[in-house]
Amino acid sequence: MIADGLVELRELGEFGLIARIKEKLPPQAQGVIKGIGDDGAICSLAKDKALVSTVDLLVEGIHFDLTYTSPYFLGRKSLAVNLSDLAAMGAKPLYALISIALPSCLKVEFVDEFISGFLEVAKENEVSLIGGDTSASPDKLFISVTLLGEGAKEQLVCRQGALVGDDIYITGTLGDSLWGMKILQQKKGRPFSAAESFLVSRHLNPTARVKEGQIIAQRNLAHAMIDVSDGLLSDLGHICTESKVGATIWAEEIPLSSSLKRLAQEKGEAPWKMALMGGEDYELLFTAPAEKAAEIRELNKEWDCGVTKIGQIEILAHGLVVKNAHGVIDIHQCRGYDHFAKSFLPPLEPSQR
Amino acid sequence: MIADGLVELRELGEFGLIARIKEKLPPQAQGVIKGIGDDGAICSLAKDKALVSTVDLLVEGIHFDLTYTSPYFLGRKSLAVNLSDLAAMGAKPLYALISIALPSCLKVEFVDEFISGFLEVAKENEVSLIGGDTSASPDKLFISVTLLGEGAKEQLVCRQGALVGDDIYITGTLGDSLWGMKILQQKKGRPFSAAESFLVSRHLNPTARVKEGQIIAQRNLAHAMIDVSDGLLSDLGHICTESKVGATIWAEEIPLSSSLKRLAQEKGEAPWKMALMGGEDYELLFTAPAEKAAEIRELNKEWDCGVTKIGQIEILAHGLVVKNAHGVIDIHQCRGYDHFAKSFLPPLEPSQR
Repeated sequence: MIADGLVELRELGEFGLIARIKEKLPPQAQGVIKGIGDDGAICSLAKDKALVSTVDLLVEGIHFDLTYTSPYFLGRKSLAVNLSDLAAMGAKPLYALISIALPSCLKVEFVDEFISGFLEVAKENEVSLIGGDTSASPDKLFISVTLLGEGAKEQLVCRQGALVGDDIYITGTLGDSLWGMKILQQKKGRPFSAAESFLVSRHLNPTARVKEGQIIAQRNLAHAMIDVSDGLLSDLGHICTESKVGATIWAEEIPLSSSLKRLAQEKGEAPWKMALMGGEDYELLFTAPAEKAAEIRELNKEWDCGVTKIGQIEILAHGLVVKNAHGVIDIHQCRGYDHFAKSFLPPLEPSQR
Repeated sequence: MIADGLVELRELGEFGLIARIKEKLPPQAQGVIKGIGDDGAICSLAKDKALVSTVDLLVEGIHFDLTYTSPYFLGRKSLAVNLSDLAAMGAKPLYALISIALPSCLKVEFVDEFISGFLEVAKENEVSLIGGDTSASPDKLFISVTLLGEGAKEQLVCRQGALVGDDIYITGTLGDSLWGMKILQQKKGRPFSAAESFLVSRHLNPTARVKEGQIIAQRNLAHAMIDVSDGLLSDLGHICTESKVGATIWAEEIPLSSSLKRLAQEKGEAPWKMALMGGEDYELLFTAPAEKAAEIRELNKEWDCGVTKIGQIEILAHGLVVKNAHGVIDIHQCRGYDHFAKSFLPPLEPSQR
């Protein structure tokens, strides 16, 4: 114990920390034969299902800033970003493993809240935490989550497979997370308006479209699918590259939240600019043949997040083109995020500061 | 490009790095339906097999020191430590995912060598690299590897299950890795003798007992099994806790390499002391009923690493006792490693410096 009554990790120790996490786990779920506490976890998959796996890394100072996010939201987001990847394959998420390196001066309460957030998203999505590894970190917090799921081989959707003439769809709204992050960086603790709070929450606490992804896969609606984590242009670029096709996006069709529209109007900005560049929206981007259009319009009514047609797949030579009412938009300044090259957005215009 | 002709990661970018890793991959293995390059990987498991999964974290400054290890050996070890965990369940390793955060000033050649080492161990063990995530790191190198495998539910071996009267066995030799690490720390680049080189290599380039673990499981030889990563006492402690039993270890029966024995003799040390405390040997520790003794003696002749009886499982009240020719040894100073509490070994005796 230290003066303020909070326990530091160095006092609890590695095995103490693991025991503390184990205590918080719900009763062992179906399919988990052996969970946390052995050299490996043992689980089962449904018969004839393929195993789908993904891993995502969150590094302090690169992916998150502890002055902006709470450990609880960080826990939620650590799993949500992985859920979004499985959703983009149309897979059913099942099992998660956490690998986490923690500065040893960190308080145990930080880890408690982180795990609470993580387990809450796990519960919402019927995912079991089955294993992991913990370590001290010399400096920064480092979180890597592996998520395992299953799907029918013939239903799972890849980036490859988009066909010329396909419609391009997106779930939810785009640009919210990027604007939310900019608000966090600029407001530095000053109070948020309701519209700002919405955007900030979309950045800190994203919702993966798990149910929607599975429906798209099970009904064979999509030829190709990806989640928008690096930005619409970057992620659509992946579909185009893998499918050897081009695409046209109609900027003014991109779905936008009323909060984003309101704030953009106040700043005198075209709101779809943020949506084009934005990353970390964790919406599903997919291409579907024209004969599925009516079925997808029905889903747009059923789903809270909605689903919107925003463009069309073209031949490869067409390239990736964005149009608005005035014609073709120069997209060279709208690149997605690259962690090493730091080629993120140009700085906000003075009017937005 | 920079002056010395070496490319830094910041110039290559995240997608460039992933493309570079993809180029080095062997042709897609059987079972891999979709490997690196989509939101998730899609693989198959053999029918009626359970999924076995494990993750291990290696943090610069905590688990390794780049002044002692080469990127090639680091790549090898990153996978080997996970293979050892699956070996300890008796599972067959199949698929790996790498999550790695790299300082952006790091040279691309570093990553090339790291991946070479990793892929070599993957090839030796018929493991396919199916996915991962890369990120910049503000400072230190972080590596988290997830390994997926399969095994028959009724054959996989856990820590739980040791029975009073079981014999305790260990593959290979113990203590080498710890002594190897101390040599690296103390020699600081000065040349090694042959015996020292052997111990250093056991530390930097451990061999997981993958084949041996699967044989132990398939022949139902073991009631309980674990790999020695934290040290014999700590890892045997896990078996005892999970199985609600005690144990006696005969210190002088612990198998030791001739290199360790020779160096201990020079220092006037009892060689089994290092073996008792040592960690990171990645040998298999298991308990087996007396009727399996003859079959295990046969394996000792067949296996290059050998397998040795070193003690017996006792009732819980007996506790964990280590004996030598003179009686019971005080083991309070022989604790295993705890990353947060830093309760590693007492410093070497002056005679060993």
